Amino acid sequence: MDISRIREDFPIAERYNYLNSAAIGIIPKSNLEALNKFSQRRILEIPHPDLYHNEYLKLTEETRELFARLIKAEKDEISFQPNTSMGINLIAEMLNWKRGDNVIVTDLGYPSGIYPWLRLKKRGLTTKILKNRDGLIDVSDFEEAIDQNTRVISVSFVSFANGYRHDLEALGKLAKQNNIYLVVDAIQGLGYLDLDVRKCRIDFLTSGNYKWLMAPFGAAEFYCCKKLLEELESPHVGWFSARDPFDLTLSPYKRSRTARMFEPGNPSFLSIFGIRESLKYISRLGMASIRKTIFKLRNTLVEGLQELDTWVPSPNGERHGSAIVFANLPSCVGEKVYAALKKRNIVVSQRSFNGRSGVRIAPSFWNTHEEVEALIDVFRELTSK
Amino acid sequence: MDISRIREDFPIAERYNYLNSAAIGIIPKSNLEALNKFSQRRILEIPHPDLYHNEYLKLTEETRELFARLIKAEKDEISFQPNTSMGINLIAEMLNWKRGDNVIVTDLGYPSGIYPWLRLKKRGLTTKILKNRDGLIDVSDFEEAIDQNTRVISVSFVSFANGYRHDLEALGKLAKQNNIYLVVDAIQGLGYLDLDVRKCRIDFLTSGNYKWLMAPFGAAEFYCCKKLLEELESPHVGWFSARDPFDLTLSPYKRSRTARMFEPGNPSFLSIFGIRESLKYISRLGMASIRKTIFKLRNTLVEGLQELDTWVPSPNGERHGSAIVFANLPSCVGEKVYAALKKRNIVVSQRSFNGRSGVRIAPSFWNTHEEVEALIDVFRELTSK
Repeated sequence: MDISRIREDFPIAERYNYLNSAAIGIIPKSNLEALNKFSQRRILEIPHPDLYHNEYLKLTEETRELFARLIKAEKDEISFQPNTSMGINLIAEMLNWKRGDNVIVTDLGYPSGIYPWLRLKKRGLTTKILKNRDGLIDVSDFEEAIDQNTRVISVSFVSFANGYRHDLEALGKLAKQNNIYLVVDAIQGLGYLDLDVRKCRIDFLTSGNYKWLMAPFGAAEFYCCKKLLEELESPHVGWFSARDPFDLTLSPYKRSRTARMFEPGNPSFLSIFGIRESLKYISRLGMASIRKTIFKLRNTLVEGLQELDTWVPSPNGERHGSAIVFANLPSCVGEKVYAALKKRNIVVSQRSFNGRSGVRIAPSFWNTHEEVEALIDVFRELTSK
Repeated sequence: MDISRIREDFPIAERYNYLNSAAIGIIPKSNLEALNKFSQRRILEIPHPDLYHNEYLKLTEETRELFARLIKAEKDEISFQPNTSMGINLIAEMLNWKRGDNVIVTDLGYPSGIYPWLRLKKRGLTTKILKNRDGLIDVSDFEEAIDQNTRVISVSFVSFANGYRHDLEALGKLAKQNNIYLVVDAIQGLGYLDLDVRKCRIDFLTSGNYKWLMAPFGAAEFYCCKKLLEELESPHVGWFSARDPFDLTLSPYKRSRTARMFEPGNPSFLSIFGIRESLKYISRLGMASIRKTIFKLRNTLVEGLQELDTWVPSPNGERHGSAIVFANLPSCVGEKVYAALKKRNIVVSQRSFNGRSGVRIAPSFWNTHEEVEALIDVFRELTSK
């Protein structure tokens, strides 16, 4: 990777030391230019109905295809939702629950991965929340929690909190052995980590695009495996999810046979265009190269922090590690660390983990080792005070 | 209104005679420039978490406020959904149905206004579809259809099919007298017609923005009246719909007290920015002036067509008329009319109404009388052939 050429695409780096892609990823300048041109067509060329159908809908299908390739799925298994959270809600509404059923989640997952299940308490659903031990949750923890009423295991591919990466292949195997659905929120992993929905036997996957996928807010992929697409009915129906959206004669509803059945109306075409551009960008650089670059930065970061006796409950190594690192300075609350970093134009997120106050650091492939060292320097100063 | 200055904002008009705002409205050039600048900030300034919270979320609240003013609601009654269709699905899922309940809809509504109710057949819900007579459905038709099991009346403010505008004030009165919810899909009326949710006693309103509101796809308003906000629970929950979205500690879910409870995750900020710009644009021109201009164009259109013995099942007058006109040339199928218009760069939609094939014509305030006359000329030629 030619880092100096890549840096030109991220002018933000001239103003900030931006180590916060786990919150919002920066859109490359070149993608943004394409995005603006796409908007421009709306006032110059796009309004002809033929163009709308030909361009907007073709774009959407192309983007499904590109995203499907990213997670080794099929195009027809991909739908667009407004955000990651909506994916979990879809599943919670869609599955046919029996009183006494339970769902296993973890305390490393994002709130939206938990609330939709809790909501179903009145329909007799129990939610078991597995607690991490020093940032880790083992497959055996799930194994122990499973009983004959377990219907779903719902996890984040990578934890937003400490960056713990689940062994999805092992979880998928366990889930299938027990006839349990595996649901994955992949937003904190996609864009730099490989994920194979077939190999991991994932039933449902939900993911937004505004982190390492570097795309605008407004569209999020929802994957439903082919077999379940045939068995289940979407809780949301509309003209767009019908087999023939352009039959407006109010004939009886026939749902699309593909994941389009989850899209009742027009999606955010602007956002989808943004995803397409980003998926192309990532594919030009190569995922392997992106991953390697990020893990190098991450390792420099963790080693530097650990030398200063910082508490880093973010597992090392590519099996359980990720681009997300939580750091707690025992001598200094997160608020103070955050403020000290902000003063140097270093952008991270202030967070707590397991009750300890700190910051979440999340480099991307376009960050440099100098940027990571600059952050470590601030930690060093805070330690020596 | 200074039409020549306005025309500069719609460069599409140099290339097409665009009479198709009922399909997709054109975004004014000035709004698009603002939209592109908004995107630009994402790669230059926005990523700092403080900026994200301060700017994106402030923008969203401002847009709620502007939209609320448009329909005479309160800011806290407005939420953003991905599209108009999702609004109807929300209500269909949210209400607590009893077997035997029924919903009254009309055949002038859009498919998405009907499918979500039909889906509930297995839960014992019946959907009564009122049929129009020559394009009209009277309040007395609803009155006759109501029985003691009627829970909902769900209509389009303005029909996508023929432009029929319901008397919402009369419908609201009827609904309240019978303890029935009134649901309105307003997408084909907002931007040029006044609508007062209080005066019309509307319980739920859903509307996208990509027609006369001239904004991008990707965000659609969902209004839920205050009283029902307190009584009902959203079927979708997530971090964003919680009372404090930034409490990520997985504490028990407490829903927002406002319509934000319907927003489980991040909306399409780009689209919301687009809405804000458009609402400001419309407010600068003045709704009364826009409405007057459109009705003048529409009257010229209808008079011209009727002189040619075209069948126009689109009621006249501001009480039941709108910017949408359906036209059927008895001597010529819609496909042929559409093709003849297309040859002259005149853009409309090809549609059927009550089994008769024709075109749907939909001028906006930036169209000219010359453009309308040019369309009538084509009809004249087709008639004389």
